Amino acid sequence: MTEKPNTLEDLFLGELKDIYDAEKQIVKALPKLAKMASNPQLRDGIEEHLDQTKGHVTRIEEVFDLLGAKHQGRKCVGIQGILMEGNDTVSDIESGTAAQDAALIYSAQKVEHYEIATYGALCSWAKLLGRDDVAGLLHQNLAEEQAANQKLSQLAVNSINVQALQMA
Amino acid sequence: MTEKPNTLEDLFLGELKDIYDAEKQIVKALPKLAKMASNPQLRDGIEEHLDQTKGHVTRIEEVFDLLGAKHQGRKCVGIQGILMEGNDTVSDIESGTAAQDAALIYSAQKVEHYEIATYGALCSWAKLLGRDDVAGLLHQNLAEEQAANQKLSQLAVNSINVQALQMA
Repeated sequence: MTEKPNTLEDLFLGELKDIYDAEKQIVKALPKLAKMASNPQLRDGIEEHLDQTKGHVTRIEEVFDLLGAKHQGRKCVGIQGILMEGNDTVSDIESGTAAQDAALIYSAQKVEHYEIATYGALCSWAKLLGRDDVAGLLHQNLAEEQAANQKLSQLAVNSINVQALQMA
Repeated sequence: MTEKPNTLEDLFLGELKDIYDAEKQIVKALPKLAKMASNPQLRDGIEEHLDQTKGHVTRIEEVFDLLGAKHQGRKCVGIQGILMEGNDTVSDIESGTAAQDAALIYSAQKVEHYEIATYGALCSWAKLLGRDDVAGLLHQNLAEEQAANQKLSQLAVNSINVQALQMA
């Protein structure tokens, strides 16, 4: 018997706890970000994503239930760093400007990318472990993160970046 | 005159400093990750990406030169969190196992996703700012990060994840 975990299932469970904590950190961070947004479409988008994120937490709890595991998180240092940096990036730009909205989108997309990387791996691992039920739930979260990221890109390209440019 | 930066150009320059620091942090982190890899293809891939990453630092310095700006970084807290977490994730799994290699790929992909989000925004902003020369250089970094991420996915799906599963 080894002292450290050494299977794909161990890795999967550890990283499930990690993203569970990450989603909870994001639920706490989004209301503040929404308040900082000047563009109404961006503010609405962040608020909508807050609701989605609460749904992601619930889906992860369903995954824990399916696996007969406790609803237990593990401090996600990665998302903590990204959220701290995002807060600084946005706060460093003058309030109420399109440049600040551009910074908000940029910071939110870093969060989305982190989650996309995580859910991508978790889905693959769940399938390999023969848990299509679990993979299906996690894939719903993945698809919503991808759609949110896409929506942010469109909003940046179609309006906010151009508005920010006009300030220059 | 405002106290805080408020233009797209300000945002661009700040985030260029951020990714400059991030790439330097990655240059420091990769040799340790390469040493932890058991799969020779993974180890070679990480070492190859180390060379690429050094090239990314140089390209960012060329961008600073084109803009007449100093080669100056700004502590990248986001990548710091991701690298710290990656180190913990990989160290927590038993050494020399395929599960540890799977954890390594997973952690490296989080780094790649962070960089893809950053370079994606920087390229768009540079184009909007009328700096196709700068956008071109940053796009080369972006394309290499995307290719590295793709390569890691293939290695995971085609061999390492399956080997890790066989340990279960």
